[in-house]
Amino acid sequence: MYSNGDIFVGEIIGTAILILFGAGVCAAVNLNKSKANDAGWVVVAFGWGFGVMAGAYTANPLSGGHLNPAVTLGLAVADVTEWADVPIYFSAQMIGAIIGALLAWALYYAQFQVANKDAETAVPTLGVFATAPEVRHPAANLVTEIIATAALVGPLLFFSKNTGIAVGEFENGIYGSGINVLLVALLVVGIGLSLGGPTGYAINPARDLGPRIVHTALPIPNKGTNDWGYAWIPVAGPLIGGVLGALVFNAAF
Amino acid sequence: MYSNGDIFVGEIIGTAILILFGAGVCAAVNLNKSKANDAGWVVVAFGWGFGVMAGAYTANPLSGGHLNPAVTLGLAVADVTEWADVPIYFSAQMIGAIIGALLAWALYYAQFQVANKDAETAVPTLGVFATAPEVRHPAANLVTEIIATAALVGPLLFFSKNTGIAVGEFENGIYGSGINVLLVALLVVGIGLSLGGPTGYAINPARDLGPRIVHTALPIPNKGTNDWGYAWIPVAGPLIGGVLGALVFNAAF
Amino acid sequence: MYSNGDIFVGEIIGTAILILFGAGVCAAVNLNKSKANDAGWVVVAFGWGFGVMAGAYTANPLSGGHLNPAVTLGLAVADVTEWADVPIYFSAQMIGAIIGALLAWALYYAQFQVANKDAETAVPTLGVFATAPEVRHPAANLVTEIIATAALVGPLLFFSKNTGIAVGEFENGIYGSGINVLLVALLVVGIGLSLGGPTGYAINPARDLGPRIVHTALPIPNKGTNDWGYAWIPVAGPLIGGVLGALVFNAAF
Amino acid sequence: MYSNGDIFVGEIIGTAILILFGAGVCAAVNLNKSKANDAGWVVVAFGWGFGVMAGAYTANPLSGGHLNPAVTLGLAVADVTEWADVPIYFSAQMIGAIIGALLAWALYYAQFQVANKDAETAVPTLGVFATAPEVRHPAANLVTEIIATAALVGPLLFFSKNTGIAVGEFENGIYGSGINVLLVALLVVGIGLSLGGPTGYAINPARDLGPRIVHTALPIPNKGTNDWGYAWIPVAGPLIGGVLGALVFNAAF
Repeated sequence: MYSNGDIFVGEIIGTAILILFGAGVCAAVNLNKSKANDAGWVVVAFGWGFGVMAGAYTANPLSGGHLNPAVTLGLAVADVTEWADVPIYFSAQMIGAIIGALLAWALYYAQFQVANKDAETAVPTLGVFATAPEVRHPAANLVTEIIATAALVGPLLFFSKNTGIAVGEFENGIYGSGINVLLVALLVVGIGLSLGGPTGYAINPARDLGPRIVHTALPIPNKGTNDWGYAWIPVAGPLIGGVLGALVFNAAF
Repeated sequence: MYSNGDIFVGEIIGTAILILFGAGVCAAVNLNKSKANDAGWVVVAFGWGFGVMAGAYTANPLSGGHLNPAVTLGLAVADVTEWADVPIYFSAQMIGAIIGALLAWALYYAQFQVANKDAETAVPTLGVFATAPEVRHPAANLVTEIIATAALVGPLLFFSKNTGIAVGEFENGIYGSGINVLLVALLVVGIGLSLGGPTGYAINPARDLGPRIVHTALPIPNKGTNDWGYAWIPVAGPLIGGVLGALVFNAAF
Repeated sequence: MYSNGDIFVGEIIGTAILILFGAGVCAAVNLNKSKANDAGWVVVAFGWGFGVMAGAYTANPLSGGHLNPAVTLGLAVADVTEWADVPIYFSAQMIGAIIGALLAWALYYAQFQVANKDAETAVPTLGVFATAPEVRHPAANLVTEIIATAALVGPLLFFSKNTGIAVGEFENGIYGSGINVLLVALLVVGIGLSLGGPTGYAINPARDLGPRIVHTALPIPNKGTNDWGYAWIPVAGPLIGGVLGALVFNAAF
Repeated sequence: MYSNGDIFVGEIIGTAILILFGAGVCAAVNLNKSKANDAGWVVVAFGWGFGVMAGAYTANPLSGGHLNPAVTLGLAVADVTEWADVPIYFSAQMIGAIIGALLAWALYYAQFQVANKDAETAVPTLGVFATAPEVRHPAANLVTEIIATAALVGPLLFFSKNTGIAVGEFENGIYGSGINVLLVALLVVGIGLSLGGPTGYAINPARDLGPRIVHTALPIPNKGTNDWGYAWIPVAGPLIGGVLGALVFNAAF
């Protein structure tokens, strides 16, 4: 239903927007010399949620606006997205996430390169790009990401039943009319507020992996660890959670 | 209009989502080693409200998305829901609330089991699961829950008159199109912000009773009281308030 | 287009809901022993805005959901509401505001009567019911209320031109479909956030006068002043502002 | 499609509303003796966003509700707005911005003229009217404004593809139905939360230049600098960003 080229372009643009806003709000709250420094968790959750809205609504006419390998996998399990298209989605989402992280870095260049130069006041910058757990406990962290992602992908699929879109006939995308993209965005705000406390809610492998690569590559002063030891959890957890959410949907209908 | 099986499945899934988000946001704000620790009342109110949105919009195609015995009772009084279906709604809502509380506990496992282990810094955990009054005054607390629930169930019924849905013809559920589920969710945010100060706004017997059972049963370290002496108020108050809200609606139309 | 009886009932119920939520959020933030104590201006602004949403959407099918003499006056100037109906709207709005203030007092009874009993820690309670300026300067305070109310009534009228509702044909009320009632609610949130700093944005004579009467009459311990010397400003300012907003609308179309 | 007169009137009224709310929220948070003093970044971002909603939805039936020379330029590049209309939009937007800044000053008169009189406690007032960078670094500040504005104008154009509005047939304006004006408003909230940290997100030449002129002209006590040395960045950056956003849109469709 979407051409390969449109999927590729749409997912790159949409995921880049998502990560620009998402990494952006983490920079806004965490970095020195930012007007939103220490503005709190409510700002983080709404920033990411409105990033989903901006990216998904932008990409929707081209690719359906997944922006997330866990969503794509869930939609494939629910027979909405064709399995043959999955690799196109995945690769475009990774490219988009990397572009978005670079844009966020460029936008906050003075904060990264100037305000973080003094080693005494510098803050570790990985938190702008990737997630980290408050309590390091791999099994528990994995369970957190699984449940939080199932709470994204399951409702996303159930929501579509409210607008008369039958599975297999998603001509207008999984969001149908404009109201659904807003509701999905607020769902993501809710996941952030409610379920983000333990691990920072990756709920999206590309969201964590792409920016972590960028953080590793960029010459940011006093940037601290890249924490690759944790990186598998925000990839594996969301993929498992996306499948589980879709299986609950399949069982219910 | 909904089959018994669909009601049962829909209410279990929807209420589980509601409580996962609702207990989740209380965990996020109250527990040690959570990124949203002390994030404030605005986070609590929006977390619960978006939990209503997520759960109700998910359940809507199956059961109409009540998720709350006080709503079901009010809809029965308003002749929207058949009395014969009420026991199915009630039992599914209780099961869903218990599942949701267990999911929230699993998602915050490291916070409950690891971060709360030190008796000196541990926090009482009942507040994640159930409500408690700021001033213990049974009559006043009961009145608070009655008025707050009437302010949920009354408007919920009046809202439906805006979309051309006549009572008795709720084929698309009490929410009609997507906009109404959003407005009901924001109504719940408003109830939290405005009316939640005295008792923490149970406004839903299953929301308080189910998680209180889970809190009693779970082996959480330093969990403190289960406060069963207060438990009847968040059950009785909402049921009375739901009936009152429906009676005002019946009188107006 | 609305019957006199429907206008009367609708405006009483809707305004009572508005003031229950509005006075409620002021109680939540200002009173001792409230879970939302000191929760900040964002909570106040969203609490009032979602109160407008709850009250206006409830009243809309009966009366068009004005809930505010300044809105009614503006709509009469814009030829939307008949002048003969204006006294019915005004009296119902005042009755509703008084009922709403009483409900908020009942809901926060333990906070008013128990937590405010100790004269040393008690807080003045007028702020729960009525507005007061930060800098007492009658001319400036009046200008503030005029501009803030014009910024409510003007846009409210312009908004209706977006949904194909011609003035004089408001069969579905001034809010048209559900989306407009949400946008008006968010407009009120915006007025609170942006324009409420100097005087606490009455922008509605009934909202200030009705609850001020209730505060004067109720036996609240340590309640402090009723400040009747200021009471004319939140009545006169909004009425002038409502007319000005409507005149701008009339001039533009 | 819009008459010259309607464009002129609509953009003046809409931009005046936008700046009244935007400068208003900056006054609310920054000035002494305001109820919202120090209310935080979340209040600033939502105040500006709901100002966009109020202004754009008001102006939409007359002019399409651009309110921003960067939006107008982007729409001209995307062939939505005719180049011949661009000077009308620009001049009306500047006039509207100046009127809006004067209204915000009048509304906060007591805060500016009374509360700011004492030189010891007075605060610099330019921040109410115009933007300033946290780290002064012209190249980086320019890049910030370019990316943030591209993240406004690009999505604004892509959003319109979701509602069946083909470019060149914007009979109902770029916002189509009501939902799109809300989504654009939330997009602006998101830009504020996520991308506003370094420079305070002008993303609109008229929003910065008009109020800066007003600040320079008004006799505010202890007002501090007008910082004209920075003024070119919030003009040039948004114009470049608007063109870039439109070019991405043109390339994708």
